[in-house]
Amino acid sequence: MMSDFKEWMKVHQARVQSVAERLLPSEDLVPTALHQAMRYAVIGGGKRVRPLLVYAASEITDGCKDVVDLVALAVECVHSYSLIHDDLPCMDNDTLRHGKPTVHIKFGEATAMLAGDALQPEAILLLLRTGLPAEQCMELVRLLAEASSTTGMCGGQAIDLSVVGQAISYEDLQRMHAMKTGALLKASVLMGAMSGQSEFISSDLLKNLKEYGEAIGLAFQIVDDILDVTEDTATLGKTAGKDEKNDKPTYVSLFGLDRSRQLVVEQHNRALDALCSLGLLQGKSKHLADIADYIIKRSY
Amino acid sequence: MMSDFKEWMKVHQARVQSVAERLLPSEDLVPTALHQAMRYAVIGGGKRVRPLLVYAASEITDGCKDVVDLVALAVECVHSYSLIHDDLPCMDNDTLRHGKPTVHIKFGEATAMLAGDALQPEAILLLLRTGLPAEQCMELVRLLAEASSTTGMCGGQAIDLSVVGQAISYEDLQRMHAMKTGALLKASVLMGAMSGQSEFISSDLLKNLKEYGEAIGLAFQIVDDILDVTEDTATLGKTAGKDEKNDKPTYVSLFGLDRSRQLVVEQHNRALDALCSLGLLQGKSKHLADIADYIIKRSY
Repeated sequence: MMSDFKEWMKVHQARVQSVAERLLPSEDLVPTALHQAMRYAVIGGGKRVRPLLVYAASEITDGCKDVVDLVALAVECVHSYSLIHDDLPCMDNDTLRHGKPTVHIKFGEATAMLAGDALQPEAILLLLRTGLPAEQCMELVRLLAEASSTTGMCGGQAIDLSVVGQAISYEDLQRMHAMKTGALLKASVLMGAMSGQSEFISSDLLKNLKEYGEAIGLAFQIVDDILDVTEDTATLGKTAGKDEKNDKPTYVSLFGLDRSRQLVVEQHNRALDALCSLGLLQGKSKHLADIADYIIKRSY
Repeated sequence: MMSDFKEWMKVHQARVQSVAERLLPSEDLVPTALHQAMRYAVIGGGKRVRPLLVYAASEITDGCKDVVDLVALAVECVHSYSLIHDDLPCMDNDTLRHGKPTVHIKFGEATAMLAGDALQPEAILLLLRTGLPAEQCMELVRLLAEASSTTGMCGGQAIDLSVVGQAISYEDLQRMHAMKTGALLKASVLMGAMSGQSEFISSDLLKNLKEYGEAIGLAFQIVDDILDVTEDTATLGKTAGKDEKNDKPTYVSLFGLDRSRQLVVEQHNRALDALCSLGLLQGKSKHLADIADYIIKRSY
């Protein structure tokens, strides 16, 4: 069963790659440096967790693959923009991402900033190309914009900036991560479901998928904090140990490794419970459960 | 007549201000620094040319004022984000904007970048709050996203980066500015018209408004280039003479002052011709003509 999932994952990771190659502005088009930087960031690599969530959730509502491709790439564009800006000298000042030089190292800071800026409208335009009914399309736009806004990713980043070197409560840490990483992961799940046939989209489905999305979002971040301590730079493909170096509060700094690992298990169970309510632990729609397993077991 | 327009302009500039104060995330909300920076950038000042274009064009299609407010603010949010990022050290490295310290001087580079980033989804969310029919709302989102994309503002900025210190043809200069400044000005006009009653939105109207928008976009940029040479920093509220200092090709460097002034007159006539075809040179819908006059006569 798990090897079926590995195959599914490989197929869909490759699919994101080829969709990105096909749909992002060509490198030959002026402004070439901008388009090169955008493509370098998105096509470059990564685990594609967010697009995988989009594809997996779209299977529940029988999404058409060509439509879901656009949604999956839109989410990945927003994720990539956030990484480009996060790596800039005025933020984390990082030189390595997915085992390669970061965008500003390769293209310069100005082009890196613009590439991040341009990926935001690019994502919206991809959603508008789905050809879904206008109401459904607007809901996709809303989910993505909210996940990127001050109540989502940008807000979480800003809180992250403000707590460096400070004591932080468990509630505040959880809230920060729910915004910074969790919001876009949750949106990926909901957007996947929302790219399918409207007759399969019920409020009960969305409620449980929200619960699943929140749980895996937290699990994802706790695992990230653990890996930052336990793995080396070569394995991660990005600089290891930088949370401690930057004096950032993390689950590990707050609770230690053992309690952090226990928290991962708790969130994993919460995610599976939500899927269980929907009867999604078995059958053709069990890829969300597989992704939850993958997130907690990953080593980079 | 002109004094009527001055009054109209004052009323609507104040309106943008109060709409922004009311609708942007409150400074008391966490993350407070992010929200403060966003508000500082948008509420801070400026001529409000883009919101004025939205309001003026919406009068043609009888837009409801409460709806148009959201559209006007959305456009201003995107404009403000572009200024914040443009002023950053990795771009123009400017310390003065609207006669005040730039956002990164006041809030630091990281918060400035995030404030710009967050204003993009904020703008989209404002458009989604209009309550307009889904098709119309999607068209607003499309116009704004296209104007901000690599075929619009971001693309123009990237070309601008690539031509510093280089010889550039008239066509390339015009194309760069059509993307960098023109795209959002044109979108403001079209979005204003698109926020009104659908029965008044015809393809002939949109065609002529596009023509008008392109013409004033070019005129605006040529005037900007002229002012950069002829006015001082105190009058402009931003650093004067910086095009020459940064070795940027401009209309003035390419054609000299006299020919540049003549080009402004040509574009002004083109804009008025487009309005004339629509019968918009007189009556209650003549504010677009007034704005064209204002753009070519402004001194900052």
